[in-house]
Amino acid sequence: ASADAPAKSGKKSKDTKEDQKFNLKTPKGMVDYGPQQMVVREHVFNTITNVFKRHGAVSIDTPVMELKETLLGKYGEDTKLIYDLADQGGEILSLRYDLTVPFARYVAQNKIKQIKRYHIARVYRRDNPAMNSGRYREFYQCDIDIAGTYEDMLPDAECVKIVSEILTELKLGEFVIKVNHRQLLDGIFAVCGVPEHMFRTICSAVDKLDKTPWAEVKCEMVDQKGLAAEVADRIHDYVVLKGGAELVEKLLADTRLCSNEGAKAGVEAMKTLFHFCSLFNVPPQNVSFDLSLARGLDYYTGVIYEAILIGKQVGSVAGGGRYDNLVGMFDPKGTKVPCVGVSLGVERLFTVIEQQAQSTGAPLRQNQTEVLVGSGQKQLFEERLRLCGELWAAGIKAETPFKKNSKLLDQQQYCEEHAIPLIVIIGESELAAGTVKLQEKYAQVQGKGPEITVNRADLPAKIRELLKASGSHA
Amino acid sequence: ASADAPAKSGKKSKDTKEDQKFNLKTPKGMVDYGPQQMVVREHVFNTITNVFKRHGAVSIDTPVMELKETLLGKYGEDTKLIYDLADQGGEILSLRYDLTVPFARYVAQNKIKQIKRYHIARVYRRDNPAMNSGRYREFYQCDIDIAGTYEDMLPDAECVKIVSEILTELKLGEFVIKVNHRQLLDGIFAVCGVPEHMFRTICSAVDKLDKTPWAEVKCEMVDQKGLAAEVADRIHDYVVLKGGAELVEKLLADTRLCSNEGAKAGVEAMKTLFHFCSLFNVPPQNVSFDLSLARGLDYYTGVIYEAILIGKQVGSVAGGGRYDNLVGMFDPKGTKVPCVGVSLGVERLFTVIEQQAQSTGAPLRQNQTEVLVGSGQKQLFEERLRLCGELWAAGIKAETPFKKNSKLLDQQQYCEEHAIPLIVIIGESELAAGTVKLQEKYAQVQGKGPEITVNRADLPAKIRELLKASGSHA
Repeated sequence: ASADAPAKSGKKSKDTKEDQKFNLKTPKGMVDYGPQQMVVREHVFNTITNVFKRHGAVSIDTPVMELKETLLGKYGEDTKLIYDLADQGGEILSLRYDLTVPFARYVAQNKIKQIKRYHIARVYRRDNPAMNSGRYREFYQCDIDIAGTYEDMLPDAECVKIVSEILTELKLGEFVIKVNHRQLLDGIFAVCGVPEHMFRTICSAVDKLDKTPWAEVKCEMVDQKGLAAEVADRIHDYVVLKGGAELVEKLLADTRLCSNEGAKAGVEAMKTLFHFCSLFNVPPQNVSFDLSLARGLDYYTGVIYEAILIGKQVGSVAGGGRYDNLVGMFDPKGTKVPCVGVSLGVERLFTVIEQQAQSTGAPLRQNQTEVLVGSGQKQLFEERLRLCGELWAAGIKAETPFKKNSKLLDQQQYCEEHAIPLIVIIGESELAAGTVKLQEKYAQVQGKGPEITVNRADLPAKIRELLKASGSHA
Repeated sequence: ASADAPAKSGKKSKDTKEDQKFNLKTPKGMVDYGPQQMVVREHVFNTITNVFKRHGAVSIDTPVMELKETLLGKYGEDTKLIYDLADQGGEILSLRYDLTVPFARYVAQNKIKQIKRYHIARVYRRDNPAMNSGRYREFYQCDIDIAGTYEDMLPDAECVKIVSEILTELKLGEFVIKVNHRQLLDGIFAVCGVPEHMFRTICSAVDKLDKTPWAEVKCEMVDQKGLAAEVADRIHDYVVLKGGAELVEKLLADTRLCSNEGAKAGVEAMKTLFHFCSLFNVPPQNVSFDLSLARGLDYYTGVIYEAILIGKQVGSVAGGGRYDNLVGMFDPKGTKVPCVGVSLGVERLFTVIEQQAQSTGAPLRQNQTEVLVGSGQKQLFEERLRLCGELWAAGIKAETPFKKNSKLLDQQQYCEEHAIPLIVIIGESELAAGTVKLQEKYAQVQGKGPEITVNRADLPAKIRELLKASGSHA
């Protein structure tokens, strides 16, 4: 497939050596993350994990591989994007495509009736990568799912609340969480005159409306899929609708629509969802009831979600929905465990945050070193190591240049380059007096902070005090 | 291979249904981790990460897959244990076998001259799993590596210091970090009369001495590998030696051994290592110079490490060494970047910590919920949700039963089962007065703590105060 042609290297070495055995690259669609990027990732993961924990979620982990049979029949057309392991004898294995199917397998296998769990891990798709917009073949998902029977629509509303908290706390600007309901969509299709066997394929067509103009989508419905043009037009009248709680009332007043039982149930579910979101104090402008939202995956059975950042061209940054039948597909007796969940598309969040950081120009710290142990005197090299050991023992993040004849000027410069807030300087006379010099690199006053003399025994406490005062304690 | 025969299921379902399509299991040698285990993992990862950061390390991440050619020629006989991806068109890929080779590829590809990085990630080996002792086919490694040219043996000593800090802070009981030097080993082989082309194979035999008696190892050397018996005996005289800094002096006094340049350089390097470890204040009893330590991998060129827990039967819990030529193997011009690093075998640490936890019987909390929002009055269901929203907004970890008619008794019991330290109770009269009742589940006094009445506006602050006082703030 053209998607799999080996990527061309951007630059060629001038002389191709005969003995150059290695193609120095990562696999197509996969990338290394350097220290700078890892700082952003750690921040995003910590923020997300903190929200998940605030909502009482527990954490699980599953293998990166599943039996191939576990994944089959779950992803529709996208099954072709699954990575398979080579048959090296033994079981036939594939890499996970998402975290939802492994979760359903876990719930069924362990006969769990109720769990609120989060899972942060990488998934794999042999898709056409678009590296600049954060679409990779290996990428992280952060999922939270609530399995079990609860007050109707309440876990569904908590998922909206959780996404709202995360996107707010990540300070990504304005966002909107689009919500819709699969039963309502199917009801609309029914009252518009779509034959039942075409519901899923027409649903896929509707799913394209966020990127494709109606004329093209109609074309797909009518010319490719054989739907009557007037049926398509009737669908159009519905799928252009979007709004808040008031749209619920408008749809409830649509007697033709509400003559369809599923549609009515769907709209009433949305009414309950909006009510719970309001009790949870989700800002109304952050939730949009959008009848064009359809979601690609087959397994959704109720509410569906998709979050976008307003004014940012990265596509959806969260998606999910209710899937009440998936666990039952794994249970020998078909016992169902209703589930709802949402997945954060963190690679896209990383992309946005990295762009924001670049535009402000503020360099992100790569490590968290709090103090550099320096000295201008070569003979104090061993004393520097000893003091490092003392600081480590006190829990202070400390470094010292790993060369004997390191110069004080280079040490000062190293602090500046790495935004290390403090430098301790050892000298012969201080050593004799049992003291050290301590200097704040980023004191409140302009320029370098004053040097202070500290008793060596008091150094860890003094370092903590200064870090706390400057707020730079990592 | 017999290692790959499908694992037999422990229990059989009574009636095998025709429609049971799924083999509900994880791949052989791989396991799910439930909430209880994840709590242990998070604790271990946080402890390790904290030590790595204290030493100024930055973090990187690389794809779980590498081009197959990147991995070839690095692992000797173990190459057969590499997982290959199926050829689905495009590049030929394998799953990473460790984090060291991807790190060397990363350093070479990005032309890095100096980095101290850590990497916590899963690696894959098609080995014979031994699940009870923590040997899996998919398992985490926590690696720290220091690349670049520094004062001789100083990064090597910092690796020892880091392992010592981690094993101490994890409270795993007594441990010892065995150290040795490849140049010394080769020097010993040379002076004992081993032909140079047999150094690596004899080294592999020595590597088995921690699990296998000398008689068997000698057998392997002499009968299988064709070494003269008296040469084996001479090797034996050396490899039984172990000790601390005093062993260095003993070896330096061995003129026959030190007539070999490599052996002398190795012993002198060990002398420097012990000196730096002492400056770093590594407890002497935690480091053992052990001449039988050999390590399996081919790429080590200098110091080698292996840590064991005394009195625990889990095998080595950390291992590593210096590998000065690996990065050069990836560089088109062969430019070397000297490296040293160590890898924590965290699966084994998890196993030990889980066993410790089981023996103390203290249940680990699975989630971190700080307060349950309860009420005995069904009509206050919505008020419970509203209060949850308020507490989340204040950053408090809160839950409320997701059913309308939840009973107060069940709520109290839920707190006890999940070790939730506080419960807030809403009633009609308190609601009218703008207050709530707050009860500590684990007050200092025996039994339930007293109920106190708190103004609703002061609730988050009061909750924080109580959590702080009881030390149960997660």
